[in-house]
Amino acid sequence: MRADFQGWVGAQQARFEDVLRELLPRAEAAPQRLHEAMRYAVLDGGKRVRPLLAFAAGELAGAQQARVDAAAAAVELIHAYSLVHDDMPCMDDDVLRRGKPTCHVQYDEATALLVGDSLQALAFQLLAEHRLSDDAARQLEMVKLLAVASGSRGMAGGQAIDLASVGKALTLPELEFMHIHKTGALIRAAILLGASCGDQTSSDQLDKLDRFGKLIGLAFQVVDDVLDCEADTATLGKTAGKDADNDKPTYVSLLGLQAARNMAQRLHGEALETLAEFGPAAQRLRELADFIVLRKY
Amino acid sequence: MRADFQGWVGAQQARFEDVLRELLPRAEAAPQRLHEAMRYAVLDGGKRVRPLLAFAAGELAGAQQARVDAAAAAVELIHAYSLVHDDMPCMDDDVLRRGKPTCHVQYDEATALLVGDSLQALAFQLLAEHRLSDDAARQLEMVKLLAVASGSRGMAGGQAIDLASVGKALTLPELEFMHIHKTGALIRAAILLGASCGDQTSSDQLDKLDRFGKLIGLAFQVVDDVLDCEADTATLGKTAGKDADNDKPTYVSLLGLQAARNMAQRLHGEALETLAEFGPAAQRLRELADFIVLRKY
Repeated sequence: MRADFQGWVGAQQARFEDVLRELLPRAEAAPQRLHEAMRYAVLDGGKRVRPLLAFAAGELAGAQQARVDAAAAAVELIHAYSLVHDDMPCMDDDVLRRGKPTCHVQYDEATALLVGDSLQALAFQLLAEHRLSDDAARQLEMVKLLAVASGSRGMAGGQAIDLASVGKALTLPELEFMHIHKTGALIRAAILLGASCGDQTSSDQLDKLDRFGKLIGLAFQVVDDVLDCEADTATLGKTAGKDADNDKPTYVSLLGLQAARNMAQRLHGEALETLAEFGPAAQRLRELADFIVLRKY
Repeated sequence: MRADFQGWVGAQQARFEDVLRELLPRAEAAPQRLHEAMRYAVLDGGKRVRPLLAFAAGELAGAQQARVDAAAAAVELIHAYSLVHDDMPCMDDDVLRRGKPTCHVQYDEATALLVGDSLQALAFQLLAEHRLSDDAARQLEMVKLLAVASGSRGMAGGQAIDLASVGKALTLPELEFMHIHKTGALIRAAILLGASCGDQTSSDQLDKLDRFGKLIGLAFQVVDDVLDCEADTATLGKTAGKDADNDKPTYVSLLGLQAARNMAQRLHGEALETLAEFGPAAQRLRELADFIVLRKY
């Protein structure tokens, strides 16, 4: 990883943390416990991959930073809510997330449920109340894009397919279909929302960015499966080997470790190809693609 | 209840059922189980009070019916999702709703969680993808209005306050604060969204409608508490006396049955006063106010 890129990531992550701190409800405002738990679930956590992708796509499209910030925050709140609900006992029943007790452990299940529900509402509030585009009709399209990416035909639908797949022998296309929804939809949305905040991209270019998002989203998941197989609890900050324990199909269980690594490399290569025409303006997106595939945690 | 009004309610309810059937994802579309459960949670249920309020407010504002339908559906999906999550074991742990097994009983908890999450996303999708106003900026305001009404400073926040109040001796203002959020916010949103689909209301008139919504929302809750105290399981289709069992504060437990009935009457009267200037155009809203306060179920 180039030092310049590493510096950019660190600076963006730190800056975005402040953005989230500002946009989340104050912990002192009623209902305090809910607001405190919302902040607990969102702040000081994660690599912020989706916001970083939105920033890089926004840069490519010449978007104003404040606009991309609001859009990236909306995507990250959807991601954060999905983790809170996903960790609950009726879903994955995880007690650790990013090295901290999960929301329902730190607070209680009912609060975790409402934290997720409230974060989703806040995501759409942000997309509606901040100016993301000079064209309000375009901004409505952005709201729709995030709603579709989050809902039953996107992320939540992917989680439903995931649930239904426990203990089943999935084929590779079935596994891919699940991940394209479960993690892919939101990653694509992050890139498209970031780019939509600017006006220097044609619809043909948006299609290319969408394809990049699809490929890099899949690569992200394959790498996740590889890391989950390799890592131990201490490094990853979540209970390692859990997917295998639960008899959930993964790329590693389906292909084997080495073939899964090869698949991630191939997806990475294809993703970079879709960016060819953008030239130097897409450098950050290329670096993020490297980051996602070469990461060790 | 006048026959004419009764006919209007029945016709609107039947028509709106078809609207919801159309707008919900097909049960045949993947993921089937999730889509089937979403339809189960929304269709054939409830009095559709919020949509009826939206229709009446839309009529007052000269709005096109198709626009009000989409807005009313968005509000009803938020309401339906909140019931699904509210019924879950970690919240109210209810097994019956509208005389049918609750969603997590009919399906499973994880599916119920995802049903709620997906219905919320679909609500915002509807507000973004249907044309509700000729002015896209105004439509963004409507998205924001529903998001705020649903989130931690609206409905979900009210549920958090409700949770925190179990076993506590609330004062009347505290109980009111809870209900203004828990049920009031969405009822107000239904009225304002319905009215916003038209363009025959001034901002002063919207304020009056908002006040009407606040009063009638509170009256709705007081009547709910009265009915919950009076009704038996068979009539109400939910487990009667549950709030009292859970040691939840209600208007009846705080004021006594007769004083709670009087309070509902007083709120009803004040609500009608706020409609005075609208003349005959507000007749449906007046009739709905009667309906809400005089209902027996």
